[in-house]
Amino acid sequence: MKMIARQDCQTLDQQDQLAASRDEFSIADGLIYLDGNSLGAMPRQALSQAYQTVEQQWGLGLIQSWNDAGWFDLPYKLGDSVAGLIGAAPSEVVVTDSTSVNLYKALAAALQLRPDRKVVLLESSNFPTNNYITQGLLAQLNPDYTIRYAEADGIEAAINDEVAAVCLTQVHYRTGRLLDMASITEKTHCVGAISIWDLCHSAGALEVELNACGVDFAIGCTYKYLNGGPGSPAYIFMASRHHNQVQQPLTGWWGHAEPFAFERDYRPTPGIGQMLSGTQPIVSLALVNVGLEIFKQVDLSVLRSKSIALGQLLIDLVEQRCSSYGFDLISPENAEQRGSHVSFAHENGYPIMKALINAGVVGDFRAPDTVRFGIAPLYLRYTDIWDAVEILSQIMATGTWQNETSEYSDSPDPGSGRQVTRVT
Amino acid sequence: MKMIARQDCQTLDQQDQLAASRDEFSIADGLIYLDGNSLGAMPRQALSQAYQTVEQQWGLGLIQSWNDAGWFDLPYKLGDSVAGLIGAAPSEVVVTDSTSVNLYKALAAALQLRPDRKVVLLESSNFPTNNYITQGLLAQLNPDYTIRYAEADGIEAAINDEVAAVCLTQVHYRTGRLLDMASITEKTHCVGAISIWDLCHSAGALEVELNACGVDFAIGCTYKYLNGGPGSPAYIFMASRHHNQVQQPLTGWWGHAEPFAFERDYRPTPGIGQMLSGTQPIVSLALVNVGLEIFKQVDLSVLRSKSIALGQLLIDLVEQRCSSYGFDLISPENAEQRGSHVSFAHENGYPIMKALINAGVVGDFRAPDTVRFGIAPLYLRYTDIWDAVEILSQIMATGTWQNETSEYSDSPDPGSGRQVTRVT
Repeated sequence: MKMIARQDCQTLDQQDQLAASRDEFSIADGLIYLDGNSLGAMPRQALSQAYQTVEQQWGLGLIQSWNDAGWFDLPYKLGDSVAGLIGAAPSEVVVTDSTSVNLYKALAAALQLRPDRKVVLLESSNFPTNNYITQGLLAQLNPDYTIRYAEADGIEAAINDEVAAVCLTQVHYRTGRLLDMASITEKTHCVGAISIWDLCHSAGALEVELNACGVDFAIGCTYKYLNGGPGSPAYIFMASRHHNQVQQPLTGWWGHAEPFAFERDYRPTPGIGQMLSGTQPIVSLALVNVGLEIFKQVDLSVLRSKSIALGQLLIDLVEQRCSSYGFDLISPENAEQRGSHVSFAHENGYPIMKALINAGVVGDFRAPDTVRFGIAPLYLRYTDIWDAVEILSQIMATGTWQNETSEYSDSPDPGSGRQVTRVT
Repeated sequence: MKMIARQDCQTLDQQDQLAASRDEFSIADGLIYLDGNSLGAMPRQALSQAYQTVEQQWGLGLIQSWNDAGWFDLPYKLGDSVAGLIGAAPSEVVVTDSTSVNLYKALAAALQLRPDRKVVLLESSNFPTNNYITQGLLAQLNPDYTIRYAEADGIEAAINDEVAAVCLTQVHYRTGRLLDMASITEKTHCVGAISIWDLCHSAGALEVELNACGVDFAIGCTYKYLNGGPGSPAYIFMASRHHNQVQQPLTGWWGHAEPFAFERDYRPTPGIGQMLSGTQPIVSLALVNVGLEIFKQVDLSVLRSKSIALGQLLIDLVEQRCSSYGFDLISPENAEQRGSHVSFAHENGYPIMKALINAGVVGDFRAPDTVRFGIAPLYLRYTDIWDAVEILSQIMATGTWQNETSEYSDSPDPGSGRQVTRVT
């Protein structure tokens, strides 16, 4: 392979159809932010949106902003926007609560559709909250339930007619491996099971096709590639064919058919609204719209192409320039099987990532040995990737990473290891 | 009773020990805001807090703010502050999720403590989400569960040894009636049941004494008297004696003993942290701190005294100046049995409230006939109450309320009835 020069990357930046979208974000000079798969960068409009929600709508509009500013309808409005990014119809998604709480609702609803089956299939190395929530729900429901764990290559073989629901994350939080949603969902339906997909690491980075794949339920966060702000509310999708067929158990007043009738007994509102529960955090919720608005100008196939190109550039550059330093690619080599982050195993991954962060290249570390680089194609440039690998190669060549502590720590001390390890 | 003059109110304002706390809030000139029991007014520091969280912590700090800005610890830090307002110990409260979701967790945990009992006691006219959530949980758990409904005067008599949990709201959202937490909790424990209290309409307006009353679980919102912002995250209290004895079912990764160990199986963190589930909406969460900081200067007994005095002033003035207009006090006359809002029934309550709002006096309406005035003692003045009743008396004397539509509507049209009816 021809050695890649920085000038090649400059040329790619000049040809980049998404180059202008970087201007929608506020990114500090000199920062190369490769952690947008954990917390997306801040859109420039976020501050004015916060000002509008806090000072204008809360401070001046007060209680009347529930109507005048459309607060009450935000979960639906934002859900319609998310739907366009994940291959869903507008009335199939609401933005509300956390990913964990939404998974609980989705799985509880899914199990109602298959009352005679007592097995839930999970990927054992999936992001832990998915497994934890499933464990909590099943323990609560019935001691007969069991979880069947599989790893990626064994998932389809593990799906049989004992399985009530298959609950998977489309892109693996650690390796970036992209599961085949179409094929797995088809197998799921072939045996009569229900499919639930977590889109946290895929939505906003690649084309998700929920309805084309026939998916039943999906959940995901808005604070990674959707750039909704720290911990911003999550979304939940329920295919319209299941609407009014199930009842998720968190039956709060926002899901009632007439919340202001103050009836004693719960009656779900028709449609996706029954996935709502309690009053939502409006300031955080309103910020989600800013990130989603940016996507309205974006062709998702162009986005995916750039994501693949940037990821491949990173892999190629590390191979060309850092091959002697012991980085072991743990993400799929084949771009079609890869989401939008690239991970390497390295025995000194932790101090290396600390050194990178100190040099302005922000990725993250996942114990015990994984360095992870998120590729957010809306605001990353080809030259960012080149510069990041240049800095990495210097750190490795000069050995400056050895000045960092190698003692991984998850303690909450400021400046400790925790600062590079928080939150997927 | 001597006729109350505006000058009397001016004198009371001059003597008000809490007068300075009004300066902590941004309230438009000419606005008399009597809906702080629905959405608290905006503290002046809210905008700078939003700026700090959005522009500084998210925009510049990015992923590292999870540690450097203390985002991850916010539920605990804010919980400690809330604990001081509700008679709890600092390690017994976290701020997280919505009131509805927290009630689900609390009730699920409570029922684990009494596995052999299948009755939950509710107040039938309670704010609906409490009843809805209970209905949803019980339907999910076991068909043997039943709900026993009582009204306020019949609650203690309805508590017997069939009851697993008694779930009540301390101050009634409509009437403002204050239940006797000490007496009811004592009766609850006498029969071996578990007590759960909703503090939405009491915390921040009066002294709540959870531990002195021996309460087991409590929940509440932060967006009413605590002034945390629209829909800001709620809190949950679990008495320390129950810590590590129960497991709420929403077992997300924030409640794990080592969330960054990425273990496959759930292990709850010791203590109140097991009430956490998923990632929280940080911008809304951080704003809660601004409201709570104001309370650190406030003597709750002084706050309660002022709340009672303002409520009594409102009742007395309506009696003195509007007695011929058909307002029927539905809040308790005895201040000791009243929370911090005052409600009247009136057959034309809806257009009257619309006329009041148009005249700058913002209360709210609850179908079919209730006009409701919230008394937020941190920022209301005695003269505000006088002026509000003056405007009410003019509206009634001149009949201008008849210019408003009398057709109550809960439709979402801007300017429709919904604008005076949203959200308790």
